[in-house]
Amino acid sequence: MSEVRQRQTDGTSEIQNQNEPTKETGDNPESTKDEEGITDPDNMIDLNAASSLPQDTGKTTDVLDSALKDLTPRWRNWIIRGIFSWVMILGFGFIIYMGPLALVLLILMLQIKCFHEIITIGYQVYKSHDLPWFRTLSWYFLVTSNYFFFGESMIDYFGVLLSRPHFMQPFVTYHRFISFSLYVAGFVGFVFSLVKKHYLQQFTLFGWTHVTLLIVVTQSHLIMQNIFEGLIWFLVPVSMIICNDIWAYIFGFFFGKTPLIKLSPKKTWEGFLGGAFATVIFGIVLSNILMRWDFFVCPIEYSDELGTLSMECIRSHAFTSQEYNLKFMKVQMYPFTLHTIALSTFASIIGPFGGFFASGFKRAFKIKDFGDTIPGHGGLMDRFDCQFLMGAYVHVYFYSFIRVANPTKLLQNVLAMKAEDQLAFYNLLKQTLTSQGIVQEPPVEPPMQ
Amino acid sequence: MSEVRQRQTDGTSEIQNQNEPTKETGDNPESTKDEEGITDPDNMIDLNAASSLPQDTGKTTDVLDSALKDLTPRWRNWIIRGIFSWVMILGFGFIIYMGPLALVLLILMLQIKCFHEIITIGYQVYKSHDLPWFRTLSWYFLVTSNYFFFGESMIDYFGVLLSRPHFMQPFVTYHRFISFSLYVAGFVGFVFSLVKKHYLQQFTLFGWTHVTLLIVVTQSHLIMQNIFEGLIWFLVPVSMIICNDIWAYIFGFFFGKTPLIKLSPKKTWEGFLGGAFATVIFGIVLSNILMRWDFFVCPIEYSDELGTLSMECIRSHAFTSQEYNLKFMKVQMYPFTLHTIALSTFASIIGPFGGFFASGFKRAFKIKDFGDTIPGHGGLMDRFDCQFLMGAYVHVYFYSFIRVANPTKLLQNVLAMKAEDQLAFYNLLKQTLTSQGIVQEPPVEPPMQ
Repeated sequence: MSEVRQRQTDGTSEIQNQNEPTKETGDNPESTKDEEGITDPDNMIDLNAASSLPQDTGKTTDVLDSALKDLTPRWRNWIIRGIFSWVMILGFGFIIYMGPLALVLLILMLQIKCFHEIITIGYQVYKSHDLPWFRTLSWYFLVTSNYFFFGESMIDYFGVLLSRPHFMQPFVTYHRFISFSLYVAGFVGFVFSLVKKHYLQQFTLFGWTHVTLLIVVTQSHLIMQNIFEGLIWFLVPVSMIICNDIWAYIFGFFFGKTPLIKLSPKKTWEGFLGGAFATVIFGIVLSNILMRWDFFVCPIEYSDELGTLSMECIRSHAFTSQEYNLKFMKVQMYPFTLHTIALSTFASIIGPFGGFFASGFKRAFKIKDFGDTIPGHGGLMDRFDCQFLMGAYVHVYFYSFIRVANPTKLLQNVLAMKAEDQLAFYNLLKQTLTSQGIVQEPPVEPPMQ
Repeated sequence: MSEVRQRQTDGTSEIQNQNEPTKETGDNPESTKDEEGITDPDNMIDLNAASSLPQDTGKTTDVLDSALKDLTPRWRNWIIRGIFSWVMILGFGFIIYMGPLALVLLILMLQIKCFHEIITIGYQVYKSHDLPWFRTLSWYFLVTSNYFFFGESMIDYFGVLLSRPHFMQPFVTYHRFISFSLYVAGFVGFVFSLVKKHYLQQFTLFGWTHVTLLIVVTQSHLIMQNIFEGLIWFLVPVSMIICNDIWAYIFGFFFGKTPLIKLSPKKTWEGFLGGAFATVIFGIVLSNILMRWDFFVCPIEYSDELGTLSMECIRSHAFTSQEYNLKFMKVQMYPFTLHTIALSTFASIIGPFGGFFASGFKRAFKIKDFGDTIPGHGGLMDRFDCQFLMGAYVHVYFYSFIRVANPTKLLQNVLAMKAEDQLAFYNLLKQTLTSQGIVQEPPVEPPMQ
């Protein structure tokens, strides 16, 4: 009986709650106004809790605030956003100067923060305060999946190097088994952590954690792999999304009239088209600047001779100037210039849907921003929503249209076999290539090199 | 105002609902009794709806029902379960006799049905009846992800064969790009399908769909790949889980006293230990029977000479009898026998956690079974909950401890390159192997074979 009474009380208090606007949601008018229909006055979901998340207030340091106090909020937001955009761009430039490994580290840190932002929303909405053990678990899953993906990338790109210290060998050979065991330990831990009263919360948060891992961790590792294939495969797409964001904002700010999509009422067709146009131009210009340096176009490989990571290479086809015979003229250009058009098209047409998705998500959970990490921009996820989708696209694009079998990696695979298998493979290859006329065996073998 | 009033009415009716036990949940006492604390009387979640899902009632055909009507429910359940276990085992045996491709098809069908069972629970609980377009979308995601994983496996195992018809070539070369484009189309479709009133439902179901894909589709494709590596890698683990289930049930039925875990009150320590013991013995016996035929131990490969799939091979190390020198005696056995111990240990210690997880899930959503597909057993997911985790384990185990670089696949990779790159690779390999003394080039090359 006491249970029923308690629930009755809950129900009543919730109804009262709905009649008087709560104070927490008061300073967040945009997100609460239009979807009150789905407020969930229940035991499990607490959408009001979400509005107690740290939100970007448009305020920043006192100095900046007092300097901007006479401006209208629209202009103030614009200026703060502009300043911190430049702070980010410059900081980012410095990291790139530090080299690809610093960049990978930066992405790892950003990924962890993005995970934190999303998972915190889940914690608030599904009231995880009774489940401290579960919170530990979801971070454990983050570590596990990062261990797995990092290991996969490292073994793929630096396998030979990693296997050199004797103690590292089992970690390379049994990487998947170790990762799987770690994950299963977490899975078993989750089952043990189940508490009768909280089953529904716990399974919901389990799902929440895994979808976040899928969106944030998986895709951030695709982005890291893009870096390993050459900095340009990372820099150009990332800049395209930023460029598209900025120019869509600028075009929208000055010429915006026609609303684009209900999900993001601030977005306009004028901004969308202006952004797309600017992005295509920008992509061509930026890539033609970056292509001048090997530093940007070479994949990162470990050089055995230098004993260090090498950023030099024989340029691949995409980055060597080619002559294109059009009907009426001959054009000299880099094939990569054509690839940038494929990339910028995606960045400006499909990319924004990452943003719309994030907008819808924020509306569903009645929050304005994912956090208050960057003044004027909101949380990291508010800025990176489109980057993840773009990174995945670049990865698939590279894999499908650019990647060629890498002789060095193939050789590594062969050398990993037993000596007799290596010999058998060599003979098989020789026989096949001879029969195809690719290898002509002269009667007397000339000494190699 | 009308909105507030409407919600008030909702609230009241929900409270009434809680006071009088609803009829739908009446025949499902086990799942509603002990967790009423988390009933969610709200707009979004409707746990009562879940109990309207088709549930296994322990009833089956009229003939069987009348024959069993004098027995106690416990015995009746036992007999129905036993009969349908044999029906499944025999049907399964027939499919295996039909060959590996029939088996893969069976798994695809089971996977679709499992997806259907889980997704239906989500539809009911989160009241998707207003979202017909979303339901189409989640099936679309199922098709897309199957297309992706199937293609990956097919290209991996039968790449050369698939590329032979000219029209198939782009599908092989651009498989990831096509799959990604299909997925992104669904993603964009999801964003367009967002309806203001239903954001929360829609995002929840989006997550639900993706977690289901992760659990069911991803893992079922790992299982299919196990089949390609040799039927034994599929049959032994699957039978182990079934064996463990059956013997844990039998031991528990006759000797069960000590409860094992709160999540599944029917499970006992006696059943758990008895099942584990039986599974280890069973695994050793079964694998030693199966290993007599090449049909079970050979990976499935396309034989160019026969022009068909081949189930013959030179046996790999694991399936060739070896002499083990123990301190006091010599033992002659197949290395795979040792692997079965690693497999059965996992099947009987970790495997059940797949079941506990499923139990917790069912309790969270207040259902007794995932469906009523198999009389006496409930839904397919009720039977396969542990199979997915086991399949993933076998896949990782095989990849980590068994797999050796496959010369045929390496050769395919080489032949996929341009002629000049093939030659370059050949020379690189020759040079490397010569320098290591593996290849000795005589001054006069003897004619090949």
